[in-house]
Amino acid sequence: MNPAEVFHVLYLIAIVAEAMTAALSAGRRQMDWLGVALLGSITALGGGSVRDILLGRHPLSWVEHPSYLLITGGAALATIMVAHYMRHLRRLFLFLDAVGLVVFTIIGCDIAIGLGLPIIVVIASGMITGCVGGVLRDVLCADIPLLFRAELYATVSIVTGCLYAGGQWLELPHYLVMLGAMLIGLALRLLALRFGWSMPKFVYTESLH
Amino acid sequence: MNPAEVFHVLYLIAIVAEAMTAALSAGRRQMDWLGVALLGSITALGGGSVRDILLGRHPLSWVEHPSYLLITGGAALATIMVAHYMRHLRRLFLFLDAVGLVVFTIIGCDIAIGLGLPIIVVIASGMITGCVGGVLRDVLCADIPLLFRAELYATVSIVTGCLYAGGQWLELPHYLVMLGAMLIGLALRLLALRFGWSMPKFVYTESLH
Amino acid sequence: MNPAEVFHVLYLIAIVAEAMTAALSAGRRQMDWLGVALLGSITALGGGSVRDILLGRHPLSWVEHPSYLLITGGAALATIMVAHYMRHLRRLFLFLDAVGLVVFTIIGCDIAIGLGLPIIVVIASGMITGCVGGVLRDVLCADIPLLFRAELYATVSIVTGCLYAGGQWLELPHYLVMLGAMLIGLALRLLALRFGWSMPKFVYTESLH
Repeated sequence: MNPAEVFHVLYLIAIVAEAMTAALSAGRRQMDWLGVALLGSITALGGGSVRDILLGRHPLSWVEHPSYLLITGGAALATIMVAHYMRHLRRLFLFLDAVGLVVFTIIGCDIAIGLGLPIIVVIASGMITGCVGGVLRDVLCADIPLLFRAELYATVSIVTGCLYAGGQWLELPHYLVMLGAMLIGLALRLLALRFGWSMPKFVYTESLH
Repeated sequence: MNPAEVFHVLYLIAIVAEAMTAALSAGRRQMDWLGVALLGSITALGGGSVRDILLGRHPLSWVEHPSYLLITGGAALATIMVAHYMRHLRRLFLFLDAVGLVVFTIIGCDIAIGLGLPIIVVIASGMITGCVGGVLRDVLCADIPLLFRAELYATVSIVTGCLYAGGQWLELPHYLVMLGAMLIGLALRLLALRFGWSMPKFVYTESLH
Repeated sequence: MNPAEVFHVLYLIAIVAEAMTAALSAGRRQMDWLGVALLGSITALGGGSVRDILLGRHPLSWVEHPSYLLITGGAALATIMVAHYMRHLRRLFLFLDAVGLVVFTIIGCDIAIGLGLPIIVVIASGMITGCVGGVLRDVLCADIPLLFRAELYATVSIVTGCLYAGGQWLELPHYLVMLGAMLIGLALRLLALRFGWSMPKFVYTESLH
């Protein structure tokens, strides 16, 4: 496999992992089976879709490749069967979820770079691709998005995007930059999970009104 | 009236029925009158708008036909006056809401077929048109969307879309396929309401984190 | 400064004020610092972005001017530092927030007028630009949008839009119409805040199902 093929396999692993973790969220809200499949697809494909809509790119990935709808919906449904064993696979899933975050981020950056957009938009595009799926999942579960409250999720995406865009700007070898940005982003996310790192919180108790 | 005109009348009945049921949701959250009108318009026109944005179609229906904004906002406001009597019209409204679901689904499928999109996207387009309005309504009411938790709403939309797209693919007469898909979808929805049919639920109580 | 430059300065003040009030909302939900910055940017730039997506206009303002992302995210972060003193600036912020509402409304109307859209869509475009940012903020905080429940926010936007579009239609001098619509809208909002004006509410306690 050449690097592009490896990356595509990583993308497929990422959307499956995101759909499966979304299915567990759905199960915690006692959604029905179709709701589980829908929430899985929306979470896995929502980040890329929102990015393309914001950037005015068409067709969306799942319109061009409808198999992505079947893969993500199917992965979410399969989760119902294996949910009982997922406790034992907890670490594997957190790892795959982190892989998904950096893979999505790189894809989002790449697309914005390909459109010739400024670097701030490149990093924003990576973060939207990496994080918006989880925001949609939380909004549809009527939760305050975890992204805004906990974990270094968005931070990892920004760091990965900065490294990737910066390396491109320095004209370093493409796949080396990609690999480096992904590994550093992945390490940061896993360390944050391991040691419970988080951003400082802003606590404000008064009302403006 | 030719079949296309009949179908347009059904569409107008559908957006009015969706706006009126949204108005009752607004009333349950004690929204103000303008909020009622806005929630009515968003619920009735939101599914088609999201579909067009996802498929990259412009202008949106209410940009081309602004009267739809007045019709749906007006229907929602009128609901405030007649809410007292709606209890007695409960069955009529559930029936009209079911008509709306299948009509919206057929429209969504038709548009995707017209764009030459693959059958999975055709069915997704029908389901988005039929169901997303209600999802927007529930998100704006800070609820977990009913779609994900109860009733055969999305299922009815998928069945209707499969029958309609399948019949087109078999090159059966167009209006016969449309009528058949709508009647079967409608019957399924009404039977589900009558007998309390629902999809099995996925209940998961552990946290991955 | 010519009137267009004055208006651009008002726009910058408006996005800063919206980002800062969103930051206080974020603080009430104990979001982390990055969440504060993101919620600030989404609230300040979300109304214009949704308008452009609905009308099919690209690129979005922050894609063309990425500095808006830095300004709004930075203003939200700066709010963390000055939050302690914001109690004393309460009236200033409510005033700037009201200025933002009418400025955003005028911008939204202007864009729709420039696209030759019908007057109902012009007013809807103004209201979307003025109000959707706050709706996104509330949805991401898992609240029922204030817009639907309280204050004359959307009403002020509709009145401002009607005056502006009506004045244009009557071919009155452009900047006079703009100034008049803004001042009347601003006065209405400030009077509503001062005297606690609100729209009547629709209260409905029965379930349709």
